[in-house]
Amino acid sequence: MKVSVRVPATTANIGPGFDTLGMALPLYNTVTIEETVLPGTGIEINVFSDSDSIDQLSLDHVPTDENSIVYKAVELLYNSIGQSPSELKITIKSNIPVARGLGSSSSVIVGALIAANELLGRPADEVALLTIASEIEGHPDNITPAIVGGLVISSQEDDGSVIYRKLNWPADWKITVCVPDFELSTGIARSVLPKEVPMRDAIFNAQRMAMFVEAVNSKDAELMKLALHDKLHQPYRMKLVPGLDSIMNELKHFDNVLGVVLSGAGSSILVISEKNDLDKIHNVVKETWANQNIKCNIKTLSVENEGAQIISNED
Amino acid sequence: MKVSVRVPATTANIGPGFDTLGMALPLYNTVTIEETVLPGTGIEINVFSDSDSIDQLSLDHVPTDENSIVYKAVELLYNSIGQSPSELKITIKSNIPVARGLGSSSSVIVGALIAANELLGRPADEVALLTIASEIEGHPDNITPAIVGGLVISSQEDDGSVIYRKLNWPADWKITVCVPDFELSTGIARSVLPKEVPMRDAIFNAQRMAMFVEAVNSKDAELMKLALHDKLHQPYRMKLVPGLDSIMNELKHFDNVLGVVLSGAGSSILVISEKNDLDKIHNVVKETWANQNIKCNIKTLSVENEGAQIISNED
Repeated sequence: MKVSVRVPATTANIGPGFDTLGMALPLYNTVTIEETVLPGTGIEINVFSDSDSIDQLSLDHVPTDENSIVYKAVELLYNSIGQSPSELKITIKSNIPVARGLGSSSSVIVGALIAANELLGRPADEVALLTIASEIEGHPDNITPAIVGGLVISSQEDDGSVIYRKLNWPADWKITVCVPDFELSTGIARSVLPKEVPMRDAIFNAQRMAMFVEAVNSKDAELMKLALHDKLHQPYRMKLVPGLDSIMNELKHFDNVLGVVLSGAGSSILVISEKNDLDKIHNVVKETWANQNIKCNIKTLSVENEGAQIISNED
Repeated sequence: MKVSVRVPATTANIGPGFDTLGMALPLYNTVTIEETVLPGTGIEINVFSDSDSIDQLSLDHVPTDENSIVYKAVELLYNSIGQSPSELKITIKSNIPVARGLGSSSSVIVGALIAANELLGRPADEVALLTIASEIEGHPDNITPAIVGGLVISSQEDDGSVIYRKLNWPADWKITVCVPDFELSTGIARSVLPKEVPMRDAIFNAQRMAMFVEAVNSKDAELMKLALHDKLHQPYRMKLVPGLDSIMNELKHFDNVLGVVLSGAGSSILVISEKNDLDKIHNVVKETWANQNIKCNIKTLSVENEGAQIISNED
């Protein structure tokens, strides 16, 4: 049996929504798991890309042994029904930039879990998949949109269960994803965050979070401009993403720009805007980064409303 | 000339919305300002009540001299157009419990401002009234719903301007206002709050804030149950409101109860519930407080969608 699952890229945080908001984007990884006779541990993991914007160096960093999150995901699912995985060939077609805050790790966890679940006859429902995947990833903000698609608010409760709700992102609010040529590991990006924050910053983010949800629900662009600010993670990560500050400053005078935010923990930056003047936005980002000798890849996208999909299932 | 303005009570915070959420309730103070010849400073302030549930002792605490927030409100408005107030008789009919977290101070500030604005020929628009009133009160969360009615999210920007949006509170979500026989000054309730909070608590409240707005917009009772929790102010104020902990514990098993929260900084408690079993809720609150020798006044209310109203204007 051979199952292929296509999983969207995801962005998280999106301004005020640190560890709360996540959104699926139309860039995809595909995870294929094939039952086959193999030597050694009986698990083989291969990674490749057919996209020009993914460099081989990044892919070489993806672990393919038993430390792989893909292996862990498959193992956890098999263990949950009292089995151990073996004789599986796992192939990852990786077209989501790696270590750029676009949910590449969530996508392969989710892809591997859903493919393995299919091979096993679907023992896990959506709730179980969300819980296992969030346990491996550490938090549900990329996992949830990778599984269910769209823009979601999610949180992991004390018992490990994941609560989520989908919101309707306005179709004409565009997301320009700006991917620089440097990686930023989530581990490093987390290490610069303080354990305590000023009360006024906590209040600031809660207010912006309320504004964000209301702005999305009522398609209120003026409110969205006020909402897309953060004091809980971006100020601390600013120094890890050269150019973020300048890009924010350059674009804040653009009428059609609703906000400039880190994608996840970075290094990618999202420019959220109305649908006009996209070329101007691309140019500002390119030039600002070029001045700092940073190359980049820029794409304007809409939200992906579908989550992970089984795209082939061969007996 | 003589102008009377009726202003609703307000509750703020409402679980996760510390310094963000406010809601108008159908209990009212009325502020009347009459132009008349008076001795001394030329300003006379009187306070009375025609409600059984307001005790005279509370009213005696309301300052009626130049330290009065009512006097300050009127003075600020006159000053903003280069005048000074004089020969004004201000009468407050106070039917909102005092120092119980129900916005009595906001209501008299707003009432005095709107009455004075009317006497002066309306030099201040809504934006100016919100800004002046929030400056006196220190924050806009009670002021905004007192002026515009309904459930609002609001914040005061760095330039002093107030941003707000009204949300549609579901008509069949009832608010049971439980007013104990002890006062709690906002000053004391603020003094117990820390300057810094754990990052995880800041994230917790931002997540609940997102859930709250989405729950209200989609009338999602299950989500509201998850949303009506707070880690930024209630845990620190718990010791100032005897019985809050027990009432929360008693009511958390009630299916129709969406949440139990402090009203503003306390001392009142709100029970937010679906419309059934209200008598049971009243009894649990009464008995729990009675066990601690606390008398109380309990009313189940709906949201008041109208803000302050000029109810009479005589030449």
